[in-house]
Parts: sequence; structure tokens; C-alpha cells
Amino acid sequence: MNTAGRVIKCKAAVLWEANKPFSIEEVEVAPPKEHEVRVKIMATGICRSDDHVVTGAMVMPFPIILGHEAAGVVESVGQGVTAVKPGDKVIPLFVPQCGECQNCLNTKGNLCSKTDLGTSLGLMPDGTTRFTCKGKAIYHFLRTSTFTEYTVLHESAVAKIDSAAPLEKVCLIGCGFSTGYGAALQTAKVKPGSTCAVFGLGGVGLSVVMGCMAAGASRIIGVDINKDKFAKAKELGATDCINPRDFQKPIQEVLTEMTGHGVDYSFEAIGHADTMIAALASCNMSTGVCVMAGLLDSEISIDPTLLLTGRTWKGTALGGWKPTECIPKLVSGYLEKKFNSDLLITHTLPFAKVNEGFELLRAGKSIRTVLLF
Amino acid sequence: MNTAGRVIKCKAAVLWEANKPFSIEEVEVAPPKEHEVRVKIMATGICRSDDHVVTGAMVMPFPIILGHEAAGVVESVGQGVTAVKPGDKVIPLFVPQCGECQNCLNTKGNLCSKTDLGTSLGLMPDGTTRFTCKGKAIYHFLRTSTFTEYTVLHESAVAKIDSAAPLEKVCLIGCGFSTGYGAALQTAKVKPGSTCAVFGLGGVGLSVVMGCMAAGASRIIGVDINKDKFAKAKELGATDCINPRDFQKPIQEVLTEMTGHGVDYSFEAIGHADTMIAALASCNMSTGVCVMAGLLDSEISIDPTLLLTGRTWKGTALGGWKPTECIPKLVSGYLEKKFNSDLLITHTLPFAKVNEGFELLRAGKSIRTVLLF
Repeated sequence: MNTAGRVIKCKAAVLWEANKPFSIEEVEVAPPKEHEVRVKIMATGICRSDDHVVTGAMVMPFPIILGHEAAGVVESVGQGVTAVKPGDKVIPLFVPQCGECQNCLNTKGNLCSKTDLGTSLGLMPDGTTRFTCKGKAIYHFLRTSTFTEYTVLHESAVAKIDSAAPLEKVCLIGCGFSTGYGAALQTAKVKPGSTCAVFGLGGVGLSVVMGCMAAGASRIIGVDINKDKFAKAKELGATDCINPRDFQKPIQEVLTEMTGHGVDYSFEAIGHADTMIAALASCNMSTGVCVMAGLLDSEISIDPTLLLTGRTWKGTALGGWKPTECIPKLVSGYLEKKFNSDLLITHTLPFAKVNEGFELLRAGKSIRTVLLF
Repeated sequence: MNTAGRVIKCKAAVLWEANKPFSIEEVEVAPPKEHEVRVKIMATGICRSDDHVVTGAMVMPFPIILGHEAAGVVESVGQGVTAVKPGDKVIPLFVPQCGECQNCLNTKGNLCSKTDLGTSLGLMPDGTTRFTCKGKAIYHFLRTSTFTEYTVLHESAVAKIDSAAPLEKVCLIGCGFSTGYGAALQTAKVKPGSTCAVFGLGGVGLSVVMGCMAAGASRIIGVDINKDKFAKAKELGATDCINPRDFQKPIQEVLTEMTGHGVDYSFEAIGHADTMIAALASCNMSTGVCVMAGLLDSEISIDPTLLLTGRTWKGTALGGWKPTECIPKLVSGYLEKKFNSDLLITHTLPFAKVNEGFELLRAGKSIRTVLLF
């Protein structure tokens, strides 16, 4: 059946309010407007940033359809769309690339001014939503919303990928893998022979470990309170793994002692204020670089002397990659086996079991759970 | 009279406790120990960081001899000192360069691990003091303490400078000028054609303006609540000057509107939490770089999204210059008229009028007051 131009009724996981389970509901998905694309989602990963909205750590309007790490196939396109056509395999981009704003025109950086990251409006660029459920408008998440059989994206927020790509695998390139791998390679630009610490060995953190390895770091120290994560971290390149609960002193002091004067690069891949501060304090004064890759909406309080003595503090969104340019290249890299992001996928579940997927995440039992449609 | 090896009795400005005037006292200055140098101070600038100790914004032990921006002549040297000899003109270094620690061995960064910046012990590297007054040990400030006729410095904390240098002028190269000029040229590495904002148009801020000019910035926006500072800022290269009190909206919004999407580089040269946050928010997401050049001991609270959306936050101490290498070169640059730091000196006073000098600073009437001995 040709659905183009019509409202699609399909299943979606709606979060009606914070700290509640997702409800699988029938939603109505409006057709794409001008310069928009409607995509049939085939696979979506569960990322901790989604859970931050559930817990309230990241503030978004409700009701909302979460999900931002996915892969799918274009169902239909609105007027003026030239970059993709129905049937194309795509990855939704929570950091878009409009190609026109000052940030896109700059060869450095990747934060297109059309992103909803930081503004958290929960709306499409035109200020409206494409989802309705039980007569209520449902908010979008980061202009992606992938916990649904169909979603609508601005054309600047889709990356066309190789038609040979296995969507149930490369969906991770939409967030977790790219964020971590790019945090090391693009944002920090880790130098060969350097020393790195990675706080949090989930999907993003393990991807940071892969990025540090690819960059030629000589020492990669994984930090996590869950020892079960250490084996995989070592398999991917971590030279040491430490558990802060095994020490009486703050972990930044442990890392400073382990390395003589602090690591060259530290990464926070959790999204907690205390680990963000510990990561900053763990890198050496004078030249240390700390990269935050975890989302957090609450304020964090730091001693500015940490920076005044020479440290650099950065954040990364989607690993600093210019999305429509780089995401397809990362997918090609996956197909050429330049990295093995499959190792991050510990569970696959049917989409209807979305709540079970979040339970696995919260219990620390999964790295990445991929929901299949 | 040869004073080498003997205790010297001389005048010093002792700060017995916070929020009190300085007392000019007779102090005893011990001879330099091994690898130490005793210096007759000839001129010292008054910097806002000194006043931060007076007000308690920067926490140091009392009683203390402040001052860290100075120039003088070596009086005597302890055993093993080879870099300088009596009679040499020198600039004391609150960021030393031991040449042996991991930070000194790194070609990047300048924070020698022997600095007391951040540790604030108020002691020489061996854990003792060289000053006594009325039988009490007096603490050192940043291992420099220049509000005294004689001081003792570790040999790693003196830079030998050209014997032709006018000490009453080049003393500013010991802190304010170098910090600001280097914040732009060394720490931020401002690119030609870029847009900059400088918060605080005191000695450091005006030196940032000079650095941005030297780097070829196309727009340099000075920000200060004191309009009297605008004329000099423009003389030194500022293209616009704005007073936050002239606007209803936060100054970061004003700067974002003035520049379309925020400045490429912002600098904080005051040392206040609110201006540090405003400076960070004023630079553009995606690629903006914010450099803090003002000292502050209290914690500051920020929204991490400012960084996660691509900004970089750095601090600078002594402008990121490797001190024993670069300070003599900056003095040579001064003698070659590559920059005119004399424009920063608005007042000179005899050393005994130190309290008057601080009053000028607090009243916003001076840029730099130089005390002469």
C-alpha cells in the first residue's frame, strides 16, 4: 500500500510522564512536510540519554516518544527533498547538518544550529509535532524519536547509508558508537603514546576505548563501579580497569598516582555530575584534556583552579563528527571491518519489550540492547 | 656591604589578615638556600589577584607578603645556582619552570608541578618560609612575594632578562601583560579574522585585546561595567566596547545577537564567577573557545550542556608561556617595541603607598599601579 501523503497509524512507545514505564500505543504519524522525510524504523538502540529523560535528569516535555539511535528505511519524502528517496537506508541524526548555518559552514565543530540539543523543545524545526496519540500531540525527542515504527525527520537530520548495511547493527552508529569513538578521535584528538582514562564502560565508554586504541594510546584505563564490564573493556583495548569502590581515596587521586601526574585525556561517558568532576580532576594540569560525552541537565559545580592550572574541558555531541558527511563513512568503515561495534550489542529484543530493555540497562546487565521492529 | 649569606633586614608590606590594610614592617629575609636566589625588588605591579587574597576570594594562609608581578636584581645566590648571578636583572615567576617534571618536559602547557598555584601552601618548595617579622614566620605568595625590598625565590622561579630592560616597566611582564597577551596568542591561539570578546578591561583584559590584535582578530569586543576603560581599550585595538549595565538582557545574549551566533573566542580577565559563566555562554556552540585568565577560589556552577554542545573551556596561567624560555623573549619584544605595555601603567607610587595603590585598583581608577622601591 502506498502510504505517501497519508497519516500512518502504527505502534510507538509513548512516555506519558517521568519515572513511568513506556506504553506501547497506537499513534498517528503525519506525512512529512516540505524538506521532511518519513522513515520506517527497523532497529533502535537503548541509550542512557533516553533513560535520563525517564528519570528526569534530562528535562523534556511530556508526553514524548524517545529514542535517537536507530536505522531505518525512507517511507516517503516531503516536497523539496533531494538527498534521499523512498527505499533508501538511513540513520536519523540527533545532531543535524543543515549545511547553511554558521556552524555548518565552519570546517570545525559539528553542532548545527538546527539541533534541539540544549533547547529541548521537543518539536520539529517548524515548531510543531508529527505525532498524535489519543488526540494528544506527542513531543519529539532531539528531532529523531525512534521508539516508533515510523518517525518524521527534517531532511538535514537523515544520513543516507550504504544499502548493504545491516540496520540491526549499524543503528549504533546513530549515537553510542559514534559519540564514543569520535570523542577520542575527533574531539580530543588523542595522540599516539598518550594515557587515557574512560569513566563509564557502557556503550559510549567502550567506544571511547576503541577510539583511544585506534588513535594509538599507550595506556587506556577503564573506570566503572561494575566489574562485569572489565572483561569486554580489556578485549577492546583497555590496559587497566579500576573500580572506584575498591579505593578509600577519590578516584582522581588514584589515577594521578597511577600515572604520575594525571592522564593526558579523560572521558566521561555516564552523565553524572560527580564523575564529570572526577574526570576533569583526573587529567593532568598543564596539558590535560577532559571530554564529556554523557548528557546531564543539572548544573555542575567546579573549582575553576582546575582549569586555570592548564586543563581543557570540552563536550562532545555525536563525537564531533559532521553528521551527514561522516555517519555514512562510519557505516562504510563498519562494512570494511575497521572496527567491531557488534561487540557492544549484548541483547536484542522485539520492540514491544522496550521496558525490559531499560531494565537491563538500569541493572547494568546490558551494554547495548537493540530493539527490532 | 656584602649581604650574601646574611639575614637582610628590610621593609615589606605584610598582610596580617584578610580585609585589612597592608602594614609596612621591618622583616628579616633569610639567605637563599641551595638552588635559591635572593632578589632586590626594584618595581612591582599591583594585580587584582593580590586583592583577591585581601578580600578572601583567594584563600591563602596569613600573615603573608603578597605581590607576584615584579622585576629586580639578584642580590645573592645559594649553592648550586647556575642560571643567574648577583647583579643580573630578573623577573620572578609565579609559574616556575623546573625543567625536570613531566609538565616541563612536555612541549605543550606551562604549569610546572613546582608551582604553588592551586596548592596555595604559602611556602617555599622545601616547606619553609624565608620571611620573619616580629618573631613570626610570614608566608610566601605563589613562591614570589614581591611587596618587599628583598625576596627569596627558587632558581626555577626566576627569569634572567636583558640588562637594558627598564625594570619599572617590564615588571608587568611578570604577570598581567604576559597573562593577557598569552591568553590570546598561546592558550586560545586566536585565528586571523576571528571574533573575540574580552570581559574586564583591566591590565590583563587590555593585554588580551593586544594579543587578539596581534593575532589578527577582525572584531574585538570589550566588556566592562566601567565606561572609563573604553577609550584605552579602543586605542589598543577593541572594535566595540559594551557595558552590561546598558542592557536589560544577559550580556551573553547581547554578544550572541551582535555576532549572529556567539564569538569565536571569549576571555574572562576579572575573576568573578558570574562573568566566567557569561564568557563561556558568549562563545558560539560548536567551536567557541572560552579562556579564563582571572583567579577565583570559589566554586562555579555551570550547565554542562554549554560544553556538550561543542564549546571548549580553558584556563591560562601566565598566558601559557613556558616561563624561563618565554619571559626573557617577551622582555626583548618590549625592547624591540613589538607591543607597548607601558600604556597599561596609569600610576606609579613609592612602595610605602601600597595601600593607596590598592584603593586606586578597587575604585577602578587605575589600570596598573607600579610600586617603586
